[in-house]
Amino acid sequence: MEQIRVESLLVNYKTLEKFKRFKEYGNQELTMMEDLQNNIIENDSKSPFYGIYYGNNLVARMSLYEVDKKYDYYFAPPQDYLTLWKLEVLPDYQGKGYGKALVDFAKESNLPIKTSPRINSQGFWEKMGFVKAYYNMERDLGENPLIWLPEGVQEKES
Amino acid sequence: MEQIRVESLLVNYKTLEKFKRFKEYGNQELTMMEDLQNNIIENDSKSPFYGIYYGNNLVARMSLYEVDKKYDYYFAPPQDYLTLWKLEVLPDYQGKGYGKALVDFAKESNLPIKTSPRINSQGFWEKMGFVKAYYNMERDLGENPLIWLPEGVQEKES
Repeated sequence: MEQIRVESLLVNYKTLEKFKRFKEYGNQELTMMEDLQNNIIENDSKSPFYGIYYGNNLVARMSLYEVDKKYDYYFAPPQDYLTLWKLEVLPDYQGKGYGKALVDFAKESNLPIKTSPRINSQGFWEKMGFVKAYYNMERDLGENPLIWLPEGVQEKES
Repeated sequence: MEQIRVESLLVNYKTLEKFKRFKEYGNQELTMMEDLQNNIIENDSKSPFYGIYYGNNLVARMSLYEVDKKYDYYFAPPQDYLTLWKLEVLPDYQGKGYGKALVDFAKESNLPIKTSPRINSQGFWEKMGFVKAYYNMERDLGENPLIWLPEGVQEKES
């Protein structure tokens, strides 16, 4: 079986062009483009995006960001955790393990993970070992947070 | 022209049943249902939902919640603001002004409003006078926040 390699994606025009193929292209990408055009960020700056290439095509991506424990309202004890968003595999490349490869990459840090999927994908996240966080309205508002707990980490009691 | 009336929705089995017709039914509603079943909340408790009835049908709804100014990272000067989510009009009732009636109801408080629409509805929010907030990754993560500024309120500088 072919090797799937997850790469850290740098901000440049080529990558931003590839991002346009993903449904969840939004303000984040537009701002990166503007910052690049206005020289606020350098070409090939680090980004929170990780992706998988198939040949020259970027076929899957996610954003991943480490949140400091002082902002942790999800886990016990409070700790640094990863927040994962915009996980997406292009339609023609689904069902080949790319989504799982990205999630496995995130799990390697062994930090708890929080995600709030925007697209209906409950089954996928269950297979990945994520569970619904207890819904706390003042914290979650319109979100449906899912969490992944490494060994020894608990969900914070509401 | 008929009068459109926005009502505060109370948590009870009848309302929760009507919520199932909306696409953005999620953890929030499931938790309300469980809390009701387990007597953690009383029948007819207040909820953050407001809606519009057409006869006996709930045809439009939104959630609206006032955030304390100590958590305001969007506006200048920092102030209490409203966060609006799950604004949705059932397909057969779209184009009749129900969405606008809900947004106008929110604006009546004259507090700034933040929303992060999940469904592609940029044109609607523009017509309502909302603008894109400058994207700040550490604050917004996967969100595409839109804001509405009453007179005298500015967006916080990034």
